Amino acid sequence: MKVQGKPYRTIWLADDGRTVRIIDQTKLPFAFEVVDLKSLADAARAIAGMWVRGAPLIGATAAYGMALAMNGDSSDAGLDGAYQTLMATRPTAVNLRWALDDMKALLAPLPAGERAGLAYARAAEIADEDVEICSSIGEHGKGLIERAFEKKGSGPVNLLTHCNAGWLATVDWGTALAPIYKAFDAGIPVHVWVDETRPRNQGASLTAWELGQHGVPHTLIVDNVGGHLMQHGQVDLCITGTDRTAASGDVCNKIGTYLKALAAHDNGVPFYVALPGPTIDWTITDGVRDIPIEQRDAGEVTRLTGVDENGRVGAFSIAPAGTPAANYAFDVTPARLVTGLITERGVAEASTEGLKALYPEHA
Amino acid sequence: MKVQGKPYRTIWLADDGRTVRIIDQTKLPFAFEVVDLKSLADAARAIAGMWVRGAPLIGATAAYGMALAMNGDSSDAGLDGAYQTLMATRPTAVNLRWALDDMKALLAPLPAGERAGLAYARAAEIADEDVEICSSIGEHGKGLIERAFEKKGSGPVNLLTHCNAGWLATVDWGTALAPIYKAFDAGIPVHVWVDETRPRNQGASLTAWELGQHGVPHTLIVDNVGGHLMQHGQVDLCITGTDRTAASGDVCNKIGTYLKALAAHDNGVPFYVALPGPTIDWTITDGVRDIPIEQRDAGEVTRLTGVDENGRVGAFSIAPAGTPAANYAFDVTPARLVTGLITERGVAEASTEGLKALYPEHA
Repeated sequence: MKVQGKPYRTIWLADDGRTVRIIDQTKLPFAFEVVDLKSLADAARAIAGMWVRGAPLIGATAAYGMALAMNGDSSDAGLDGAYQTLMATRPTAVNLRWALDDMKALLAPLPAGERAGLAYARAAEIADEDVEICSSIGEHGKGLIERAFEKKGSGPVNLLTHCNAGWLATVDWGTALAPIYKAFDAGIPVHVWVDETRPRNQGASLTAWELGQHGVPHTLIVDNVGGHLMQHGQVDLCITGTDRTAASGDVCNKIGTYLKALAAHDNGVPFYVALPGPTIDWTITDGVRDIPIEQRDAGEVTRLTGVDENGRVGAFSIAPAGTPAANYAFDVTPARLVTGLITERGVAEASTEGLKALYPEHA
Repeated sequence: MKVQGKPYRTIWLADDGRTVRIIDQTKLPFAFEVVDLKSLADAARAIAGMWVRGAPLIGATAAYGMALAMNGDSSDAGLDGAYQTLMATRPTAVNLRWALDDMKALLAPLPAGERAGLAYARAAEIADEDVEICSSIGEHGKGLIERAFEKKGSGPVNLLTHCNAGWLATVDWGTALAPIYKAFDAGIPVHVWVDETRPRNQGASLTAWELGQHGVPHTLIVDNVGGHLMQHGQVDLCITGTDRTAASGDVCNKIGTYLKALAAHDNGVPFYVALPGPTIDWTITDGVRDIPIEQRDAGEVTRLTGVDENGRVGAFSIAPAGTPAANYAFDVTPARLVTGLITERGVAEASTEGLKALYPEHA
């Protein structure tokens, strides 16, 4: 999508065909900095330091990290070392493991001299595949926005989203925001209510930033506001992403998603969740019971990063010193509150039957 | 309640019997500063500058402001001037007008020389009456916590509250927090989940502070967390305050209250709202439709006050420059989601019938 009027992906090759470029997302929204990755170490640092984030983008960066490694030491030992180094950056990321296993299986049988070239080609393919999936999610979701526009008779279609499931979390388009970009690019009038998404404020620092850069009309709100807006007819459609989707259609997403789904249900507002089919966890049937919820550092609740009146970016404490705080990172929204799941194969009912109809290979 | 081990009210007389003392609440939680009010101008500044806040405390401060004025110019012109000056500090506060009308009606018929003495006496009475009401709310609410403790069989009773309806918003005890202080003081084990309450963070800066000072176990959470906690049996009881209560039992309270009530309803958690009966608006029967919702400065969403690593308190920006933001200050929770209303006369069902049974003078 666009930044300062120019189209970007979150990861791309420089003109030299070797250097990998990313956006340092830890600097957003206060600075837009493109970083050159020239080595395995650079790629590992970018993933571990969360300069890149979002499962699909982490996977693509890991794939390119293998290619960068093959530029240097393309021996078997070099291949193994690169695999281990990258795997250790974010040990729990499923896409990271998938991308690394894929690259290693491809490269290991080849003579060392052929590895770098093929590694770059496959990394590009992994990135393109993600763009393809997100673009399809966008097309299917665009249909929902189009129908909301037709039903409403006049614009804009008011959407509400939580956290950041935008292009910054993928290679391009995003998941929850893909339908919104597709609708906007097609000339359908849209307006997005952007939940701030405490404690890490991804709504303010990433979603508001990327919508603003692409020119999509939006309004930032604190997480408390969505219910009031829905009570008063100011939201036509909710779309969020999901970090983990149960086979039952329960969705585990950023903390607070469940509260918005409750408000949508109470007010008859459609609540959609966008996801790439490959991220469905077919082994889980009761998300509330069986998906473990990560608890993160309490400092994320009591401290924030901001820019002071002198333009200096820094951390600020916003609670009494020593206040005990708890930081649950995700919650689970039961399928009964989800109107539909927007996938690259179409929109499914949030149920085992709905999902299996779209993914018969899991039936 | 206690601060640094010592009992305080939010407003009191100094030993000289003339000087009025308050806590500058704008400095909390980063500093505890007691301010001497020695004149009408001091009292007006304290109200207008929000050093004191909460309807009952504003009323008591205005009453003492009249007494301070009578220390100076107790002529008819002085009385009228003081009334006008104080009325202009926060024009929409109902308690402000009520306290000023009460004081003026009492003082106007008296000879100028007798006004100051009676003004101090009546101001003290107004403060004491508020303490009495809040203490009764606390006693009635304590019963609910006691029963939750008996039902649970072991402690602590986990409570969730939103915003600040504590002693800092009243003269003492508070409304929503009064039952919690009463239960804690009676030795019932309690633990309070404190909603941060964006955008003004009253949960972090006031509720967490006052609970901490009094020694009540509590944990600060962002506003997104309550639903997850209730899904997992970690909340036994919710208690919030209300800024305006409809005759139907609909409650208008700090933005986000509605979302917590939805989560409580979805998970069978009792959701109580504490209020002084005199604040019920008997003219309103549909709160969602008829209570206008204040929209405040968008800067409250995009900027926050905090303390930096050098201990300097200041404002900082947390969104991309120029991000459009909306700031709805309150929402309305329909009576169907409210388990009961805790008043100074007892706990009422959240309905016209329930309220009229307790307040038959309005039947």
